[in-house]
Amino acid sequence: MIKPILKVLSGEQLETPPVWFMRQAGRHLPEYKKLRTQAKDFIDFCFQPEMAAEATLQPIRRYKMDAAILFADILLIPIGLGRKVTFVPGTGPVLDPLKVTDVEKLELEGAADRISNVFETVKRVSQELDDQTTLIGFCGGPWTVATYMIEGKGSSGKEVAKRFAMQNPKEMEMLLNKLADASADYLIGQAKAGAEVLKIFESWAEGLSPAMFETCVTKPTVRMIERVRSAGIKQPIIGFPRGAGLNMLSFAQQVDVTGLAIGTDTSLTMARDMLGDQLPLQGNLDPLALRIGGSVLKRAVQKVLDDARGPHIFNLGHGVAPDVKIKNVEAVLAHIRTGKGDYV
Amino acid sequence: MIKPILKVLSGEQLETPPVWFMRQAGRHLPEYKKLRTQAKDFIDFCFQPEMAAEATLQPIRRYKMDAAILFADILLIPIGLGRKVTFVPGTGPVLDPLKVTDVEKLELEGAADRISNVFETVKRVSQELDDQTTLIGFCGGPWTVATYMIEGKGSSGKEVAKRFAMQNPKEMEMLLNKLADASADYLIGQAKAGAEVLKIFESWAEGLSPAMFETCVTKPTVRMIERVRSAGIKQPIIGFPRGAGLNMLSFAQQVDVTGLAIGTDTSLTMARDMLGDQLPLQGNLDPLALRIGGSVLKRAVQKVLDDARGPHIFNLGHGVAPDVKIKNVEAVLAHIRTGKGDYV
Repeated sequence: MIKPILKVLSGEQLETPPVWFMRQAGRHLPEYKKLRTQAKDFIDFCFQPEMAAEATLQPIRRYKMDAAILFADILLIPIGLGRKVTFVPGTGPVLDPLKVTDVEKLELEGAADRISNVFETVKRVSQELDDQTTLIGFCGGPWTVATYMIEGKGSSGKEVAKRFAMQNPKEMEMLLNKLADASADYLIGQAKAGAEVLKIFESWAEGLSPAMFETCVTKPTVRMIERVRSAGIKQPIIGFPRGAGLNMLSFAQQVDVTGLAIGTDTSLTMARDMLGDQLPLQGNLDPLALRIGGSVLKRAVQKVLDDARGPHIFNLGHGVAPDVKIKNVEAVLAHIRTGKGDYV
Repeated sequence: MIKPILKVLSGEQLETPPVWFMRQAGRHLPEYKKLRTQAKDFIDFCFQPEMAAEATLQPIRRYKMDAAILFADILLIPIGLGRKVTFVPGTGPVLDPLKVTDVEKLELEGAADRISNVFETVKRVSQELDDQTTLIGFCGGPWTVATYMIEGKGSSGKEVAKRFAMQNPKEMEMLLNKLADASADYLIGQAKAGAEVLKIFESWAEGLSPAMFETCVTKPTVRMIERVRSAGIKQPIIGFPRGAGLNMLSFAQQVDVTGLAIGTDTSLTMARDMLGDQLPLQGNLDPLALRIGGSVLKRAVQKVLDDARGPHIFNLGHGVAPDVKIKNVEAVLAHIRTGKGDYV
C-alpha cells in the first residue's frame, strides 16, 4: 500500500488531496509550548531526539496530517560547518556574520555528522508512523542559509548578502558549494534514517535578479541534488523556491525536483499554466487566511482546491503562524477531506 | 524636435538610450543636502515650490539627465485626503493607521487641490528645462499608498494591509477607488502644469497573490488611468509594478500603460520575452551595483545595454541610495553615452 503523498509525488492525482502544513509542529500547539519548556533553548530542543521526535509527532496525533515534517531548523547546517548560531527569543536567529576570509575555514568534512542527532530524531519518528503518513526530511536552500550566515540575522532586503555575492563571486561560489555539499550529506543521512521525502526550503528566493538567481539558487541546488542522487538516494525531492516569481520557470527546467511547492504569490492556476499538468505541486493556501478564519478562510481553501488540476498535495504558501487557532486548522482539514468544514 | 524620452515612449528605439535615475534628486547630492536644511521638515520641503523645483533641477544641472522627475513624495496624496503624515528622520514616514471606519471620511472632493503647491513646482521646473529634457510627474500606486495608510508606516510583510483587504473587501475597494480618483486628479493637475510623462510607482506590488494583485493593484490602476484619459490628458504613462513577478503579464495586458518600468528581479530579456519587443521598457540597473561601483558596476551596465532590445529608457531597478558616489553615476552616464565609463 503506497502512502497518499508518495502516490502524488509519483504523478498520481488523488480525488482527495493529501494535506500537511509547513510549521504544523510548533508554537500554535499548546502541547508544543509545554514540551518546549523542557529544553534549555531552541537549538538544544532541535538536537534532543526524544523531544524533537515528540514535536514532530504532535500534529500527526492531533490532526492526522498526511505527512510528518521533521522538527528541526534550516540553520543547523551552519552549526555543522562550525559556526555559532543562537536563537534569541523575540528576535530570531543570531549568527556571527560570516566574513569573506571565513569561507575557506568552514569545515565541510564531517559537517553532517556534527548534527547527526537529527538522524536519530528521524529514526524515532519513522518507527512511530502508520502506513498512511509520510515522513518528510528537509534542509534549507543554499542561498537562504548563506544569507543568514552572511547577514548574521534575518533581513528584508538581503543587501549585505547580495553585496557579498557581487563583490566576492569566488568566495560566494565556494560558500554555496560547501552549503550544497553539507546539505546533501545531511539529506542523505535523513533519507537513510527513514525520511521518505526530502524538501529544500529556499525561503528567500524572492527579489533576486535572474543572473543572481541562476548563480546563487539554481546552480548550488542542482549540485546538492546531484550529490544526493549519486549516493543512491531515490526519495522524491520537493523544491520550494519561495517568491521566485519569473525565475520559477528556469528553476523548474534546470533543477531535477520531483515536485514543486508553490508560495502564496503564485496561484496554482498560474503555476500549472507555466509548468504543465504533470508536475506534482504542493500548496498554496494563504497563511494569513488561516489566521483570519471564517468565510475568508473557507473561500481561500475552496479556491486552492478548484485551482489544483494535476497531482496535488494541499499545503500553505508559507508556515503556520503562532496565533493560528486549532479550530481553523480543523475546519480546513474537514473541508478538504469531507467537503464541509466547520468554519467559525 | 521631439525629446529623446518621448521618442522612446512613442515606440522608437534610439541608438543611445536616454537615461534618468529614480531618486536622482536627493540625499546622494551635497547640493540637495545643503538645500534641505532650509525647510522645517521633509513635507514642508515638498510643498515649497521654489525648493522642490530647485531639488528637481539639481541632477539635471549636474548630470544632464534626460528627464527631470518632480521632487515630491507618494504620501502627499493621503495628506490631500485629510490624513496626517509626518517624516521622522531615521525612521521614515509615520501616519495615523487608517481604521475601517475612517475610509468613508476620506475627503476625495478637493484632495488634489489641497496639495496643489506641487503643480506650481511642476510649472517652475517646466519653464527651466531645455528642449532635450523631459519632465516626469508621478504618483504612488493605489495599493502602495493604501498599505502605508493602513499600516501607518513602511512594513516588510504588509500583513496588516493584507488582513484589512481580506476582512473588509468593500471598504478596501472604497479606499482604493478614492486613492485612484485622487491620484488621477493629481496626475491631471501635474500634466496641465507641464509634466510631459506620468509615472505610477506601485513600489509594493511584490508578494501579492494573483487574486489580490488583480483587486488591489490592477483594478484601481485601470480606474486611475481611465479617469486621467477622460480628462483629455494625452501624456504617456509609465507603470511600475515593482516586484510583480508573474503578475506582470496580467498587469501589462489589462492596464493601458505606454511603457513599463522593470525592477531588478526581472531581466530586460525576461521582460522582452514576456511582453514583446514593441513595448517601451525602462530600467533596470541594480541600485546595489551603483553603490558598489568598479568592475561590478561596469558589467551590470553593459548587461542592461545588451539585454535592452526594443524601445528603452535606461534607469535603475529601484532608487539611488544616499551613499551612492557621484563618480559612479558619472561613469554610468559616460558608458551609456560614449561607450566608455571611468569606473573606479
